[in-house]
Amino acid sequence: MATVLASASPRRKTILEMLGVKDLRVVPARGDEVIPEDAGPAETVKCLSAAKALEVAKNCSQSDVIIAADTIVWLHERILGKPSDAAEAAAMLEELSGNFHEVYTGVTVIRGDTVLSDHEVSKVFFRQLTEEEIAGYIGTGEPMDKAGAYGAQGIGALFIERIEGDFFNVMGLPVCRLGEMLKKLGVLLL
Amino acid sequence: MATVLASASPRRKTILEMLGVKDLRVVPARGDEVIPEDAGPAETVKCLSAAKALEVAKNCSQSDVIIAADTIVWLHERILGKPSDAAEAAAMLEELSGNFHEVYTGVTVIRGDTVLSDHEVSKVFFRQLTEEEIAGYIGTGEPMDKAGAYGAQGIGALFIERIEGDFFNVMGLPVCRLGEMLKKLGVLLL
Repeated sequence: MATVLASASPRRKTILEMLGVKDLRVVPARGDEVIPEDAGPAETVKCLSAAKALEVAKNCSQSDVIIAADTIVWLHERILGKPSDAAEAAAMLEELSGNFHEVYTGVTVIRGDTVLSDHEVSKVFFRQLTEEEIAGYIGTGEPMDKAGAYGAQGIGALFIERIEGDFFNVMGLPVCRLGEMLKKLGVLLL
Repeated sequence: MATVLASASPRRKTILEMLGVKDLRVVPARGDEVIPEDAGPAETVKCLSAAKALEVAKNCSQSDVIIAADTIVWLHERILGKPSDAAEAAAMLEELSGNFHEVYTGVTVIRGDTVLSDHEVSKVFFRQLTEEEIAGYIGTGEPMDKAGAYGAQGIGALFIERIEGDFFNVMGLPVCRLGEMLKKLGVLLL
């Protein structure tokens, strides 16, 4: 039995290694599936994670365990994606400053004919940021490959006054929920 | 200017490196100071962190920045320390199971004649654990060197349904608060 991570995210790989997952194979999905037009954030991330998992499962054996996830940052009723340039990163960080937002992660696990999808949401409270801090943070390069233009497990931690929910969900994989889902597939991490 | 971490905790060192702190020197304090007899958890960790910082500052230069911290797990009005053996670890994990507890970290920073002490508290909610999970977790060795017999940044993450507060505070250093304290000493991390 191999565990197959259907995601190119180095943070998700790090989390699974932290949990002691052995024989981990990384097979990123293209993930170019469409989502229902009027889907809310929870349904969106569940759909996207399911699409990734099902795509990768086609090339796996029946005994493999496939794990896929999709994470979005949700603020003022819309999705913040990855910033395309420094100006967009600055605009996102200004919006997050002094506010709370939500991070949704959808997770799908597959083994044989069993497909389970679920989601988790965490609230993240940012302190007030100064223009200098935003500029300095963008200068570190950390925001550019991350949804919402920050990393919770990095220098961005300086901005986070508090979270409510699963911390690892903010990093891209809700660890507690994933563990319970894997149990249902007969995979015990402990 | 050097930054001096007055703690042997590898997790605190990792957090400061994550924040991009350069020229980090680790000088563990003996930390055998006494605390006021009727101190609550917040006063206890502040006192202990101040004692560590002041002890190490004696051998530092005026331009150095000294950082010390002390973390306790607080459940049912008492402190859970590091377990002395597997049986004590199991007893602690049984108590944490299906409950929430609080993690207090006191922080003291010193530069020249300025000494600042503060504390941060985070709530941690454990899901219900089975006997098999507790035994399996103890078998990994992870609980033994940790207050409360678990690591939030490890396999123990499987037990944590949610937190309320600063995640890194649970690991031993409240990042957001520390950053604001360092600003008051003229040290900008961004």
